[in-house]
Amino acid sequence: MKLSEIAKLIGVEFSGADIEIVSMNTLNDANSSELSFISNAKYVKDIATSKAAAIIVDEKTKEFVPDSCIALVVENPYWEMAILSKEFAPAIEDDNLAPALIGEGSRVSAKAEVARGAVIGKNCTILAHAYIGANTKIGDGVTIYPNVTIYRDCVIGDECMIHANTVIGSDGFGFATNALGEHKKIYQNGNVVLEDDVEIGSNTSIDRAVFGATRIKKGVRIDNLVQIGHNCEIGEYSVFVAQSGSAGSTTLGRNVVVGGQSAFAGHLNIAAFSTFAARSGITNDIKVSGKTFGGFPLLEQRTWLKLQVKIARLLK
Amino acid sequence: MKLSEIAKLIGVEFSGADIEIVSMNTLNDANSSELSFISNAKYVKDIATSKAAAIIVDEKTKEFVPDSCIALVVENPYWEMAILSKEFAPAIEDDNLAPALIGEGSRVSAKAEVARGAVIGKNCTILAHAYIGANTKIGDGVTIYPNVTIYRDCVIGDECMIHANTVIGSDGFGFATNALGEHKKIYQNGNVVLEDDVEIGSNTSIDRAVFGATRIKKGVRIDNLVQIGHNCEIGEYSVFVAQSGSAGSTTLGRNVVVGGQSAFAGHLNIAAFSTFAARSGITNDIKVSGKTFGGFPLLEQRTWLKLQVKIARLLK
Amino acid sequence: MKLSEIAKLIGVEFSGADIEIVSMNTLNDANSSELSFISNAKYVKDIATSKAAAIIVDEKTKEFVPDSCIALVVENPYWEMAILSKEFAPAIEDDNLAPALIGEGSRVSAKAEVARGAVIGKNCTILAHAYIGANTKIGDGVTIYPNVTIYRDCVIGDECMIHANTVIGSDGFGFATNALGEHKKIYQNGNVVLEDDVEIGSNTSIDRAVFGATRIKKGVRIDNLVQIGHNCEIGEYSVFVAQSGSAGSTTLGRNVVVGGQSAFAGHLNIAAFSTFAARSGITNDIKVSGKTFGGFPLLEQRTWLKLQVKIARLLK
Repeated sequence: MKLSEIAKLIGVEFSGADIEIVSMNTLNDANSSELSFISNAKYVKDIATSKAAAIIVDEKTKEFVPDSCIALVVENPYWEMAILSKEFAPAIEDDNLAPALIGEGSRVSAKAEVARGAVIGKNCTILAHAYIGANTKIGDGVTIYPNVTIYRDCVIGDECMIHANTVIGSDGFGFATNALGEHKKIYQNGNVVLEDDVEIGSNTSIDRAVFGATRIKKGVRIDNLVQIGHNCEIGEYSVFVAQSGSAGSTTLGRNVVVGGQSAFAGHLNIAAFSTFAARSGITNDIKVSGKTFGGFPLLEQRTWLKLQVKIARLLK
Repeated sequence: MKLSEIAKLIGVEFSGADIEIVSMNTLNDANSSELSFISNAKYVKDIATSKAAAIIVDEKTKEFVPDSCIALVVENPYWEMAILSKEFAPAIEDDNLAPALIGEGSRVSAKAEVARGAVIGKNCTILAHAYIGANTKIGDGVTIYPNVTIYRDCVIGDECMIHANTVIGSDGFGFATNALGEHKKIYQNGNVVLEDDVEIGSNTSIDRAVFGATRIKKGVRIDNLVQIGHNCEIGEYSVFVAQSGSAGSTTLGRNVVVGGQSAFAGHLNIAAFSTFAARSGITNDIKVSGKTFGGFPLLEQRTWLKLQVKIARLLK
Repeated sequence: MKLSEIAKLIGVEFSGADIEIVSMNTLNDANSSELSFISNAKYVKDIATSKAAAIIVDEKTKEFVPDSCIALVVENPYWEMAILSKEFAPAIEDDNLAPALIGEGSRVSAKAEVARGAVIGKNCTILAHAYIGANTKIGDGVTIYPNVTIYRDCVIGDECMIHANTVIGSDGFGFATNALGEHKKIYQNGNVVLEDDVEIGSNTSIDRAVFGATRIKKGVRIDNLVQIGHNCEIGEYSVFVAQSGSAGSTTLGRNVVVGGQSAFAGHLNIAAFSTFAARSGITNDIKVSGKTFGGFPLLEQRTWLKLQVKIARLLK
C-alpha cells in the first residue's frame, strides 16, 4: 500500500516520497519498506535506531523520529495501528494460490481440508475434519488428529503430533481501546512455528504472533487445554501440563517444566531448567536456572511450603 | 403439550381446564401458556405475581399459588421439571425446516454444515467443518473459523468473529439430583445471543440458557479457553482474558475486564468498569464501579498486594 | 512381537525362550504373554508376584526378578519402555477392519466420520464433523454433537451425551526423559470407557489410559473445558464443574462434587460423597466420606473460611 493511502486511512496530511509499504512491524524489526508505530513511552529509545520507512507517532513522540524516517502524527497511535493492521491482513483463503501439495506416503482424509498454498511433507497422517490453512508448511512424519485447526502461514516441523481439536495460529488477543471504551481489533499478521518433534495435546490453543512468530522449539511437550499467547517463545524440551498457560511475549529457556493450571504473565524471561509446581502464578522474570517455584505470589517452592505451615498456625 | 399429559408424566392427579402448554419458564418470565416451577424457597415471593398457567410445587409451597393458576403438587419439583424439560426440547435438527438461506457475498465452505432453518447474512466467511445449527441467525460480515460449533436457535450479530473450535450454545450445566444421588438432565431450551462486533477466541465455550438467553453484548472481547455459563449477561466492551470463566446467571456491566484464569461464581451482579487481576475469584456482587480487584477471597487489588506483604512477613 | 526382536530394539543380549509378546502392561496387570517394566523403586515389591513373561529392569532391580520371568536389563527402563510402546501402538485407522456398523434408528451425518471397525448402537444421533475412531463401540441412544473426536478403541455406554468439540481418548501425557533432557513419547495403548448415562460438556478432554482404561462411571456429569488425565476412574454420579481437572491415575468414589477450576494431583484416592469448593487443590488422599473441602493447600471448607478471616486480620 502506498504511504499516501495509509496517511489517508488514518487522517494524516502527507506530502513526501510516496513509497510502497509492504507490512507493519515493531520498531526494532521493521525494515525500510515497513511501517512502525510507538504507543508506549518505554519504546521511545527504539525510534532512533529503527529502520522503518515511517512511524506512527503522537505529538509528544514525533520529535524523536530521525530525518531519515517519515513521522505520521496522530492522536492515538495504537488505535490507528489497529485500523491499519486490517489493511495488511491477508485473506484467510486465496483462490489464486497453487493447489496444496501432498508429500509421498502421506495419508490425508478426504474429509480433511487442506487450503490452497499449503504444503504437506512425506509420510504424514492427517485425519478427518482437520484444517490446514493457506501457505502452511507441514514437515515429514507429522500426525494431525481430527478437528485440529491450523491457521494460514504456520510452520509445523518434522515428526510433530497434534492431538484432536487443538488450534494452532488463532489470532492473538490484541485490540486497541479508545476513550469511549470501544475496542478495535489488531489483526495478527504473524504466525506460529512448531519446530521438530513437538507434541501438543487436545483442545489446546497456540496463538499466532501479531508480528513475527510464536515459536515452540524442538521437543516441547504441551498437554491438553493449554493457552500459549501470541509471540511467546517456548524453549527446547519444555513441558506444559494441562490447563496451564502463558500470556503473550513471554520467553522460556529450555527444559522449563510448567505444572498444571500454572500461568505466566506477559513479557517475561524465564531461565532454562526452571520448574513450576501446579498452579504457580509467575509475574516476574526468573534469572537463575534450575530452581523450583510455586504459589501466587510466586516463591521458591520450599519457601512456599514453609509459608503454608506458618499460615496454618494462624488458626491456633 | 396438554396440561393433562404433563400431569400424567409427573404422576399428578389433574382435573381442570386442559390448556395447551407451549413451553416452560421461570416464575417471573412465564406467560399464560407456559408452565413454571418453584424449587427454591427464595423464589416463593414470585409465585403470587407469576403469569404462568400452571406451577409445579411441593406440599409446602402449594398454598402460595393463587386461584388463577393451576398447582401441580409433587414431592420434588426440580426433578419433575427436569423430566418435563426433555419434552419441550426441540429436535437438534429438523428435516421439516426450510433449507438454510445464505446471504449475498457470503462464502460458505462445502465442508461446513449449515443446518436447515439457519439464516446466514451477507459477506460472511464460514470455513470448513464449521457447524451452524437449526434456526440460528447469523448477521452480516461475520467470520466463522474452522471447527466452530454453533448450536440451534442462536443469534450472531453483525461483524462478529469466532475463532476455531469454539462452541456457542452448548447445554448449560443443569440437572436435578434425587435422594439416591442420581442426576436428571435439565434440557437447556434457551439460546445464546452475540450482539454486533463481538470477537471470541479459540476453544471457548458459551453455554445456552436454560430459559431465555445467554447474552454477550456489543463489542465484547473473549479470549481462548474461556467458559461462560448459562444465562450470563456480559456487558458491552467487556474483556475476558484466556482461561477465565463465569458460572451461570452472572451479569456484568459494560467494560468489565477479567484477567486470565479469573472466575465468577453464579448469580452475581458486577458493576460496570470493574477490573479483575489475573486469577481473581469473585463470589460476591460488586456494587461500585471503576475499582480494581484481585485475589481469592477477593480484595481490592491494592489491599491484596498489601496483604501479600504482611503474609510474607510470617516467614521471618 | 518376538521377545528377541524386543531385546534387539532396546539393545539387550537375549538368549532364551523366544516367546511372542502381544502387549505391554503394568507389573500387576501383565499376563504371561505380556512385557512389563520397573522404573520406580516403589513398585519393586510387585515384581515377585507379576505374571509378566518378561520385565525390563536396571542393574539394581534385576535381582528381584524371579526365575520364572525373563529380565531384560537396561540402563533406563522407562526410556526403553517408551521406545517399545510405539511398537505396540495400533495404527490410528486400519483399512483391513470391517466397515463400521450403524444400529437401527441411528442418524449419522454424512459429514461425520465413522472409522472402520466402529460399532454404533441404536437410535443414536451423530452430528456433522464428529469423528468416531476405529473399533470404538457406542451404545444405544447416544448423542454426539458436532466436532467431537473419539479416538480408537473407546467404549461409550447407552444414553450418553457428548457436547461439541470434546475429545475422548486423546493420548495421556506420558513420556520418558533422558539425561540430556530429551523426551521420548510413551504411546498410550489403553482406552476410555464411559459407562451409561454420562454427560460431557463442550471442549473437554478425557485422555486414554497408557494401559487399561480411563473410566467414567455411570451417571457422571462433566462440564466444559475439563481435563481428565489418563487412567483416572471417576465414581458414579460424580460432578466436575467447568475448568476443573485431574492429573492421571486418580480414583474418585461415587457422588464426588468438584467445583470450578479445582484440580486433583495424580495417583490419589478420594472418598465417595466428598465435595470440593471452587478452585480446590487436592494433593492428598481423602479417606473419610461426606466432607466438604476448599483452598490450596486443601482444608475442610469451614476451616478454610476461618483461616481467611485470620489472614484478613493481618491487615490491621
